[in-house]
Amino acid sequence: MELVVREAVRTRLADALLHTLDLTGTFVFGMEGALAAVAGHLDFFGAMVLSFCTAVGGGIIRDLLIGAAPPESIRDWRYGTLALAGGCTSVFLYHSVRQLPPLLLLTLDAGGLSLFAVAGATKALKYNINPFIAVLMGTITGVGGGTVRDILLARVPTVLRADVYATAALLGAVVFVGAINLKLSPRLAAILGGTGCFVLRMVAAIRHWNLPGVASS
Amino acid sequence: MELVVREAVRTRLADALLHTLDLTGTFVFGMEGALAAVAGHLDFFGAMVLSFCTAVGGGIIRDLLIGAAPPESIRDWRYGTLALAGGCTSVFLYHSVRQLPPLLLLTLDAGGLSLFAVAGATKALKYNINPFIAVLMGTITGVGGGTVRDILLARVPTVLRADVYATAALLGAVVFVGAINLKLSPRLAAILGGTGCFVLRMVAAIRHWNLPGVASS
Amino acid sequence: MELVVREAVRTRLADALLHTLDLTGTFVFGMEGALAAVAGHLDFFGAMVLSFCTAVGGGIIRDLLIGAAPPESIRDWRYGTLALAGGCTSVFLYHSVRQLPPLLLLTLDAGGLSLFAVAGATKALKYNINPFIAVLMGTITGVGGGTVRDILLARVPTVLRADVYATAALLGAVVFVGAINLKLSPRLAAILGGTGCFVLRMVAAIRHWNLPGVASS
Repeated sequence: MELVVREAVRTRLADALLHTLDLTGTFVFGMEGALAAVAGHLDFFGAMVLSFCTAVGGGIIRDLLIGAAPPESIRDWRYGTLALAGGCTSVFLYHSVRQLPPLLLLTLDAGGLSLFAVAGATKALKYNINPFIAVLMGTITGVGGGTVRDILLARVPTVLRADVYATAALLGAVVFVGAINLKLSPRLAAILGGTGCFVLRMVAAIRHWNLPGVASS
Repeated sequence: MELVVREAVRTRLADALLHTLDLTGTFVFGMEGALAAVAGHLDFFGAMVLSFCTAVGGGIIRDLLIGAAPPESIRDWRYGTLALAGGCTSVFLYHSVRQLPPLLLLTLDAGGLSLFAVAGATKALKYNINPFIAVLMGTITGVGGGTVRDILLARVPTVLRADVYATAALLGAVVFVGAINLKLSPRLAAILGGTGCFVLRMVAAIRHWNLPGVASS
Repeated sequence: MELVVREAVRTRLADALLHTLDLTGTFVFGMEGALAAVAGHLDFFGAMVLSFCTAVGGGIIRDLLIGAAPPESIRDWRYGTLALAGGCTSVFLYHSVRQLPPLLLLTLDAGGLSLFAVAGATKALKYNINPFIAVLMGTITGVGGGTVRDILLARVPTVLRADVYATAALLGAVVFVGAINLKLSPRLAAILGGTGCFVLRMVAAIRHWNLPGVASS
């Protein structure tokens, strides 16, 4: 009996932690969207749009593709609110945000990416999507928002041509889906996948790794 | 008895008026799409695509996001037809269209924007979307088509960086949703929201108002 | 009895042929996406994204618009796999692919376009979409993937401004839907529509036909 109670408490704590991380990721991605808007000389409305799209765009694309309409961030007002709150933080506290240690921003961003990749793959599997496509859905959840942001800024999405960023999301999703298929517990699979994504992203960013280009010469 | 009949007649007239305005807005937005195509040196097919996307793109995005697939303009052929008719008008009567008084075009465009913003928020509320998100959906209905048009022209969407345009749609949706939440009649709420959007857009356009940029300096 | 069996065998052969063509088209469009990625100096991940989007993007947009979520290429892993296989072929065998006779690539591409246009219109009709919109859906299935590819490369989609490409897809869809409405058999309608698209595309490409621009002068 006591064991069951303890297990329930532990699960609830894990869920609460995951949820906190998810909302933190949304906030951080919202901040980044507004920073890109400032750099791109948009107006305040544009900054809010970029915050929203960067933070929840990936999840929206995933939900539309797996047939989970209306998307979670349209049903649950907290996602949009947090995305815009992140955006306002960047706009109104621009100079303070710019003075945050880059490593802190990088760590938060890598954390958000890891979480989005694993959460995206989880949701796809829950909707009975094939494992191969579930990996794609995890990756899209992680990098889709940034891609929409870059499209709105009329530039080639960064993830398509530089940095081990999408690759980290992909690795996280592959490890997670692989671990699930090997019958590991979802929690362990999530930890393995998230850690894989996080470590690869951090090491790649610090060491300035890039994928080989597919040059035509 | 007589009162009920009168009320029914009045409602039918109001519905007919709203529908006429909706289709007029679609036609005007279609015209604007093709004008942008001419300015961007596209071919005839490109002009038709831009007409269609500008006129019904916002409504399609809204319908996909609130889970109302297939979107209204895919189910009802009249929207697409009117969008393309507007586009053909711009292409084949280009010089006549260019000689229309700018104030007429501005008024029609502001009318379409107001109507789309209110209609978009109405539909979102009907699908049980949270009021905060319903406001976003109204705004997207108003400015989504122009955003898709600008993406197809490979430029940063105008609404993101200049003009009190999206802000007017946002104001209209906020007033409308607020009035609904204050238990005003839907018709009164629509009139208030639509008027708010229309007046702000007209005044801003005539006085060349802009939102403050979010400059990095 | 024998007749029924024969008919069944013939239908199965036709289905198998259609399916083979469909998967071939996906592979060819995947190859083309990666070729564009190489020309655009993307990295390997970007090449895979462009392969995927070019090959299945049109079908995904169609499926979302007609309310057939999750889209076929998300449900059936073979489409994504073939798209990426096409992309890998272009990346790893780049010099060999570049030395293929242009007429072969053109023929394969025109074949894929014809098939996608007819298949797209077929599916839209099956979902009770109005014939006028079904024609649009066929065209979108054919050219949507290339449009997404060009948006990701931050350039105005080629189909909007040059070449009789979208027009060929449109012709194929019009002929097909028209033939269906004239009560011709689906197979005959498909052959007529596909042939119309294929022939127009080949002749236009070889003779360098373009649609008239909608010039502002």
